[in-house]
Amino acid sequence: MRFPHIMELHPEPIGVDRDALVHCIEECLDCGTSCTACADACVAERDVQEMVHCIRLCLDCAEACASTGRIVARQTSPDLTVMRAAIEACAVACGASAEECERHAAHHEHCRVCAEQCRHCKGACEVLLAAIG
Amino acid sequence: MRFPHIMELHPEPIGVDRDALVHCIEECLDCGTSCTACADACVAERDVQEMVHCIRLCLDCAEACASTGRIVARQTSPDLTVMRAAIEACAVACGASAEECERHAAHHEHCRVCAEQCRHCKGACEVLLAAIG
Amino acid sequence: MRFPHIMELHPEPIGVDRDALVHCIEECLDCGTSCTACADACVAERDVQEMVHCIRLCLDCAEACASTGRIVARQTSPDLTVMRAAIEACAVACGASAEECERHAAHHEHCRVCAEQCRHCKGACEVLLAAIG
Amino acid sequence: MRFPHIMELHPEPIGVDRDALVHCIEECLDCGTSCTACADACVAERDVQEMVHCIRLCLDCAEACASTGRIVARQTSPDLTVMRAAIEACAVACGASAEECERHAAHHEHCRVCAEQCRHCKGACEVLLAAIG
Repeated sequence: MRFPHIMELHPEPIGVDRDALVHCIEECLDCGTSCTACADACVAERDVQEMVHCIRLCLDCAEACASTGRIVARQTSPDLTVMRAAIEACAVACGASAEECERHAAHHEHCRVCAEQCRHCKGACEVLLAAIG
Repeated sequence: MRFPHIMELHPEPIGVDRDALVHCIEECLDCGTSCTACADACVAERDVQEMVHCIRLCLDCAEACASTGRIVARQTSPDLTVMRAAIEACAVACGASAEECERHAAHHEHCRVCAEQCRHCKGACEVLLAAIG
Repeated sequence: MRFPHIMELHPEPIGVDRDALVHCIEECLDCGTSCTACADACVAERDVQEMVHCIRLCLDCAEACASTGRIVARQTSPDLTVMRAAIEACAVACGASAEECERHAAHHEHCRVCAEQCRHCKGACEVLLAAIG
Repeated sequence: MRFPHIMELHPEPIGVDRDALVHCIEECLDCGTSCTACADACVAERDVQEMVHCIRLCLDCAEACASTGRIVARQTSPDLTVMRAAIEACAVACGASAEECERHAAHHEHCRVCAEQCRHCKGACEVLLAAIG
């Protein structure tokens, strides 16, 4: 990935641990796409009617991850309260999605992997929240 | 707008006041686009160096409004905790953006109008949060 | 809506008919949300298995409308080739979504309304493409 | 990244070379974030007034990459014409952004890296277009 290098070259880097920023963005990118792909797989499953809550939560989580990833990628003149609220909302969406995907992990392997990714992203959000303080 | 009619026709409408939902989405759509257009206007201003914080906050607010508008537009099998966190993050972004745009309202008319829209969107988010409970 | 006023106040407005720009953005905002709400309603329908192609196309159309709306809302130093390609992709997505929603219009009223909105958005994209030249 | 594994587990995988799909998404994720971070760095540069076109094109490219990445991540019941138009629009945005970033590569290292990423993403879009046929 080249974006971490670009962030490193920012003329006035944000005063937040860059590893925590980059790691959170990487997890958001993977989680947003994982949730998009998992919702998409759920729609194609024969038991789609059992997957309705999972589809909903994965679509919401994809939104939260995408917008949070972009907010965290910006270092110029930030408002930490805004960043924090976005990251918190993302962690909540990841947690809900992880929990629901775990319910389907035994019969849908894509849900098992997606739950794992949601847990990782939630963790990276929490680490970044601690780093922001 | 046709989307409120589509939301009305949902087979299992969410148990939340529909007027509050629709109003919040409408304000998010306008606010997201207003902030996109205001950041864009700021970039083109001769005093762009004074507008850096405004550009940043408007870009963040545009993200929050866009993703929140889409999350709120979904009624199927919601997780109210996820919705609430997204709407709260949106209200925080709108508040920060409004405050900063107000600082430039006297010399940039687009900031004055954008601040107004951010205030309206923040208000609609708060009304919806109260309706969700 | 306040965003058209903000666009009017841009210090160096783009040399493209502003009514066509604003109309396209308005239709993109409504169409993006309509498609999000229609896909969401389809997921909740008892015949969801018949709605799979409709869900897919509405989700894609929502993406195209959202990103195109934001690209068109910017007037600063544009690249018309980039704008044109985005608007064309949006028109294609709207056309596909309209066609599929029409197939379900008789039994799902939300699809009938969504198809209508997709047609309007496609039309606004085409008018803007003609205005850009 | 976990999303490629999730895509592999789709019950009815799209009939398109999966490596080309995954590679295009990976490049879109990196390019969307790289362009977000580059526009953000440009806004903070002392010569921001020289960077206006670059900021604009990077913001547009970020939009195109994000929406295209999500459209390509879905395999359920696709419309290849819609996919193709989105990928083409993305390649156009990447090309324009690469060209403009290259103009600033000598004095802004973040532009040099961003241009490189835009070229890679454009390439991955073209490979995927060839694979779709």
